[in-house]
Amino acid sequence: MTDQKIYQASTTAPVNIAVVKYWGKRDPKLNLPTNSSVSVTLSQADLRTHTTAACSSTFGSEDSLLLNSSPQDVSGARTQACFRELRSLRSALEVSDSSLPKISSLPLRIVSENNFPTAAGLASSAAGFAALVRAIANLYELPASPTELSRIARQGSGSACRSLFGGYVAWQMGEKDDGSDSLAVQVAPASHWPSMRAAILVVSAEKKGVSSTSGMQITVATSKLFKRRAEVVVPESMKLMEKAILDKDFETFGEVTMRESNSFHATCLDTFPPIFYLNDVSRAAIRVVEDINEKAGKIVAAYTFDAGPNAVIYFEEENADKVAGVLKSALGGLDGWQVSEVKEQDHSELDARAVQVLKDGVSRVILTSVGEGPIKTEESLINASGEPVKK
Amino acid sequence: MTDQKIYQASTTAPVNIAVVKYWGKRDPKLNLPTNSSVSVTLSQADLRTHTTAACSSTFGSEDSLLLNSSPQDVSGARTQACFRELRSLRSALEVSDSSLPKISSLPLRIVSENNFPTAAGLASSAAGFAALVRAIANLYELPASPTELSRIARQGSGSACRSLFGGYVAWQMGEKDDGSDSLAVQVAPASHWPSMRAAILVVSAEKKGVSSTSGMQITVATSKLFKRRAEVVVPESMKLMEKAILDKDFETFGEVTMRESNSFHATCLDTFPPIFYLNDVSRAAIRVVEDINEKAGKIVAAYTFDAGPNAVIYFEEENADKVAGVLKSALGGLDGWQVSEVKEQDHSELDARAVQVLKDGVSRVILTSVGEGPIKTEESLINASGEPVKK
Repeated sequence: MTDQKIYQASTTAPVNIAVVKYWGKRDPKLNLPTNSSVSVTLSQADLRTHTTAACSSTFGSEDSLLLNSSPQDVSGARTQACFRELRSLRSALEVSDSSLPKISSLPLRIVSENNFPTAAGLASSAAGFAALVRAIANLYELPASPTELSRIARQGSGSACRSLFGGYVAWQMGEKDDGSDSLAVQVAPASHWPSMRAAILVVSAEKKGVSSTSGMQITVATSKLFKRRAEVVVPESMKLMEKAILDKDFETFGEVTMRESNSFHATCLDTFPPIFYLNDVSRAAIRVVEDINEKAGKIVAAYTFDAGPNAVIYFEEENADKVAGVLKSALGGLDGWQVSEVKEQDHSELDARAVQVLKDGVSRVILTSVGEGPIKTEESLINASGEPVKK
Repeated sequence: MTDQKIYQASTTAPVNIAVVKYWGKRDPKLNLPTNSSVSVTLSQADLRTHTTAACSSTFGSEDSLLLNSSPQDVSGARTQACFRELRSLRSALEVSDSSLPKISSLPLRIVSENNFPTAAGLASSAAGFAALVRAIANLYELPASPTELSRIARQGSGSACRSLFGGYVAWQMGEKDDGSDSLAVQVAPASHWPSMRAAILVVSAEKKGVSSTSGMQITVATSKLFKRRAEVVVPESMKLMEKAILDKDFETFGEVTMRESNSFHATCLDTFPPIFYLNDVSRAAIRVVEDINEKAGKIVAAYTFDAGPNAVIYFEEENADKVAGVLKSALGGLDGWQVSEVKEQDHSELDARAVQVLKDGVSRVILTSVGEGPIKTEESLINASGEPVKK
């Protein structure tokens, strides 16, 4: 008689925002990067993907994935690579211990929910693939460490490998052709430097620019400045950033974060045809951060931008008034402030024109902080009959 | 008895717009650049500075300069360097030929008029210093060649050295510490490739950004990508551009022009703090040029931007319909089209959003072409009594 049991496991996984930027693959199939990178994992209270992975002989013959109630194509090479690698690890366990149920060959049913709008350009693929890999690893009861799983998640989405850890995370680019040493490691846990905060200014929808997957490869192929960044600039940034995190040195952390964002976007502009992710709203956010730092007489706030116009502004809790308090008084009408305990501060130091551009162009603010890695949960998105839970 | 005669001479000088960009000085005092550059001289029918230089013992004791009826400070090191060098050449002539009037020590009175708004960010300092140097050289009847005068004009404003020639002009960076080999030479006269046209989209006034003089030195000091541009990228661009001009090869001319503009602005963005000259209107101009080229199936239009948001779009006369005709129909309501014979063309290939951004953000259009170098004129801005002519 066939085993008709429904096996399942659930996890949540965080978003991460890089402070030393990943841009460019040396092997697009394996998602092997041209340079190492570092990110801060953000709190799942504000931004997370919740994923349940289940498998059962009753699930028909095909793997499936439901994201925010929409069926997703799982036939792509990236998703297939994750499924294949995880099944292979489970299969090896089953061979070595015949008492284990033979579930590696059963069809997978994955259900995912984000607690933030997917379209907002908030690194949802990183959280998504991290949650998918972590949930299936839980389902298969794999003994693999987060670093071992990062090798798999990387093949789904490069930056997903960093979302398998909380705190401050490095993705070491590695050297091997097979990618076996291109892995994420924790630089420091969130508890090492728990006072790190982030204010995300979500810029009102603009027509989506070049996707990061295709954009970065056009940069590698055409930018004449890119190689210098990958070979010289980033290795310097990596050293400075890892030391800044270990020393909890915000001024260095902030300067390297801002320079790294600028350097990455400079190579986008040097791409042919050029790629623009920063717009006038992004420029206004940069100006406002510069004004805040000038008033403080040192770097207390640091902007960074990924492949889109949203600004992520890092600051320490002790400077919450000087950074978030000033932003709140300048942009107080926006959605997102109500959850915070930040007290509004005088913002007369901010360029009035930049404030107006932000007021017109930012749709909401998300205040968050450094957070933990994936968290196993009993809350399931798949019920006992194997059906997605209706929300 | 003292000679009370008023000596005078007049010239006009053109604007030039670089296609291989000058950005960065290796010697700020002598205006010695970190890299060579190439420009196209634009027609003086549309953009020129008209300058009369006069000297007389009746002019009191001080040199003076009137630009568009406003007295200018001539005590700055740059203007003083031009006066000193030109006086020194005249003085040498006077020593070698005692029949010449001794005018090198007389006070200079310079009167200048631009036929375009100074504030529009249209390289007015290049035309201004070229006209000043050329007018005084005429006044002093110096036998110096344009290349010899370029060494002097360079000390007033770096890019002014290129405005001493018409057509296609290279500024060779030189190697010597004293700057004696940092000179402009003509790559080809306007008559070699007379079909070159330029459409300038003047972007509505925005608060002035970082001046190019200070901006470029912050780039030299802080950008980690800049050195690569100066040492590797520009030398390649120079070779390609000079050959493209000699071959009248617009596709290469256009690609190098666009890549050079992007590379220069990329190093501005990589400056810390970052320098932005391109705004959303500039980005829309880039998008529209890309759409025009895509429709044409080849590069028929090439954008370039200096230290401000104005777009200069080069094209050849044979493609006037495909470029200016399309722009005219898209942006027909703007000031500046009336002078042109361009026929409006269908512009449905252009991104509608970009067209709207241009309509909202461009204040006027200037249609012009490659043109001649400084032209001696009898039209004087100083009357027989030595007073500025009232306009």
